Formats: sequence, C-alpha cells, structure tokens
Amino acid sequence: MTSLDSATSAAAAAELPDVSQLVVGVLGGTGDQGRGLAYRLAKAGQRVIIGSRSAERAAEAAAGLGLGVRGADNATVARESDIVIVAVPWDGHGETLAALREELVGKIVVDCVNPLGFDKQGAYALTPEEGSAAQQAAALLPQSRVTAAFHHLSAVLLQDPEIESIDTDVLVLGDERAATDLVQALAARIPGMRGVFAGRLRNAHQVEALVANLISVNRRYKAHAGLRVTDV
Amino acid sequence: MTSLDSATSAAAAAELPDVSQLVVGVLGGTGDQGRGLAYRLAKAGQRVIIGSRSAERAAEAAAGLGLGVRGADNATVARESDIVIVAVPWDGHGETLAALREELVGKIVVDCVNPLGFDKQGAYALTPEEGSAAQQAAALLPQSRVTAAFHHLSAVLLQDPEIESIDTDVLVLGDERAATDLVQALAARIPGMRGVFAGRLRNAHQVEALVANLISVNRRYKAHAGLRVTDV
Repeated sequence: MTSLDSATSAAAAAELPDVSQLVVGVLGGTGDQGRGLAYRLAKAGQRVIIGSRSAERAAEAAAGLGLGVRGADNATVARESDIVIVAVPWDGHGETLAALREELVGKIVVDCVNPLGFDKQGAYALTPEEGSAAQQAAALLPQSRVTAAFHHLSAVLLQDPEIESIDTDVLVLGDERAATDLVQALAARIPGMRGVFAGRLRNAHQVEALVANLISVNRRYKAHAGLRVTDV
Repeated sequence: MTSLDSATSAAAAAELPDVSQLVVGVLGGTGDQGRGLAYRLAKAGQRVIIGSRSAERAAEAAAGLGLGVRGADNATVARESDIVIVAVPWDGHGETLAALREELVGKIVVDCVNPLGFDKQGAYALTPEEGSAAQQAAALLPQSRVTAAFHHLSAVLLQDPEIESIDTDVLVLGDERAATDLVQALAARIPGMRGVFAGRLRNAHQVEALVANLISVNRRYKAHAGLRVTDV
C-alpha cells in the first residue's frame, strides 16, 4: 500500500526529538499490556523500569523480560524515569496516581488505560467523571505533563517474541506539543509503529473507548486488530 | 503493506450479500458528506436517491451529480429506498428521524452523523442523551434496522472526481448481523473501502466522536485522514 509507505516517510520527516537516552518507567508493568510495552521498548534499546505495588513482583517480571529491564515499586519507578507509562487497571487508576503525585512532578506521563466494562454482550465503554482516564490523570497530576497513547495495542502481539514488527499507528493525545512530540518519538522506536498526533486530552475518551470496538473486531475476525491512519 | 493486502482478501472471502440491486437513499444528501457518499455509491453502480427537506434542492443536487441520481423530499426518499443513509446535521437529527418513523419501518437505516461541538481549540465530542446519534436513531425508529457507519470519510475526498479509490475502512456497527452485513457490503462497493464490523450500537459513541480526533489529525498533518483496521 503506497500511501502507508509514503506516510511513514512523512512521519519520519516530521523530525521528532531523540528519546533514545530517556528512561521509561511502566507503572503496572507486571500486567499484560505493561509487560508487553516494556518488552518492545527494551528490545528497541530503551532503558526501561517496570513498576508494581510490590517491588518483588516487579523484579520477578523484569527478570523474566531480560533486555536490561529493571523492576521496582511504583514510587521508585516514577522517581527514576523521564517518561512514565501508566498501564495499571482502570480500577485503581486514580488511587495509584494520586499516591505518586510528588514523584511524577515534571515527568511526562503517558496514560494508556482504557476504562471498560464487560457483560454478556462483550465490552462497553465506561465514562470517568473527569471525561477519560487521561483527564483523570491530568486532574490528579497538575504538575506532570500528561499525555495519552498506546491504547490500541494487542498485548498478545506485544508479548510474542516471534513478532518483529507491529502493524499499527499509535494515537498520541495531549495539550503540550513538546510532550506529545516525545511520546510520538517513543512510539516510533518500536518497529512497525508510528506515533500520530490525534488531538487534545479533552478528546481522549473516544480513543480509550474505541478499545471496546477493537475487541468486537477481534472476536468477529479472530484478529489482533490495530489501527492505521491513512493519508498521514 | 502485505498485511492490508491479505486483509482485503480476507474481508472479501467473508461472503457478504449482494447489494447491487438495492436502492440507497441519502437523507441530507445536499450536504457535503451526503452528496459525497451519493456520488461514490452512484459511481459504483448503485441506484441512489438523495433527500432534502426541499424536494427542489434535492433535485438540483441530484442533477449536479448525474450518474442517474434522483432527488426528492426526505419522506419520499425514505419510502422508496431499501437502505437509508442518515447524513443530516446533528442539529435536527432527532427531529428529522422522528418525522420519518413510518416511512422507515423495516428499512436498513445507516446513521453516519457525528455529534460534535467546535470552539477555539477545535472540535470536541458531544454526548447525546441516548449515548450516540445511532442510539438516538434506534430509539426513535424502533421498527427500523438501525446501523451506524461511514463516520470517518473525508467529504473532500468523496467529492473529488479525480480520486478513484479512497484508502479507508468503514467501521460498521449494529445489533443485527444481517443488517451490518448488508452495510459492510455497501461500503465495499466503493473502490478502496472495506466494511469492517466494529461492534454493537451501544459502542457507537466513540466511533462518532473519533471524528474530533481525525479533525485534529487533519489540521496537524494537512491531511484527509481515514482509518484502516490492521490484522483483519
């Protein structure tokens, strides 16, 4: 598909910042999504620390990943990282972030949490009081640089060492250009991925909620669906 | 990109129904989105009638399109069509549909309306009382077969006769398989497009709202963004 090939060059030409020296922390790094992201970023050469409420569980998960990944309790991870990916379950999202407010001052926070409910008919979107998980993070962390990204990645694909390249764009949202540029650059470190700016945090809800639709896609087509933005 | 090529074959292999003999009505067919869709479907060989509150304006717009497109008032269009695409402005959506309840009994209704607000910072999602425009349609039209689709198409690309193929998937939502299959087949009539089932109507809000994000994408990248679902 020529349009996507040229699109990739166009994104590359956007001259995103160099993030290769930044330390990336992953809160909730022992869950499937967090562990998968940590694996992909470490494999791409990024220094990664995964966090958990229990430092011991984090260290175990880090040892399982190898690639120089370290594990620590969430507070240590927040303190020692430049970019902090929030991959905790929605249930506990607010509580976890509120407890890390000081450690996260000045940090780039990347919320990738999808507030979803499940019933017999499948997944459906929950609407947080603040509008979205990302807006809740921004409300709880007024001195952090909050962005939202990495919502639509298949944890199965992320964790599969046989898969070299992941065919998806990463929609990156945020209100500060320098922060979203860094997160786009981080996404682009992973082979196959591209970071695409997709609006302000006030438009994060639908990006988070769209995971419910991708779950429907996956069920119908037995797939691990991702998204590409065309004409970019 | 091999994955999308194989994806297209996979979708084709899904054996969607033949919709080539069905009459497609477009309510709001004099607006950019409706006219663009009418043009593409007529060009693909579909019989198309565009509707407007004013039969005269509809007839004028139809004459402008050529390709055998007819124009009529909304009620006539609803009555004479098998599949009715709702492309009216959000402001007036409920009123228009409530007035057509009888004409739309038994019809496949395809809602493609995106409830958005605009301010200095750009577009943002509105949340209809029923959850989404599509759910409002379903509530107002209990005897119609309501689906949602065609939200993410660029009216500019749709209307540009120089463009032969439109590089995007169409997310199709609905609670009745036979209806969503027909709408997927209709989307696949347009070169470049593919209809992908993406969940029940209760998950329509985020698909509608995502247009706010695509507007941000278009501003940042000077693009006419569309979406592809990967691994399908």
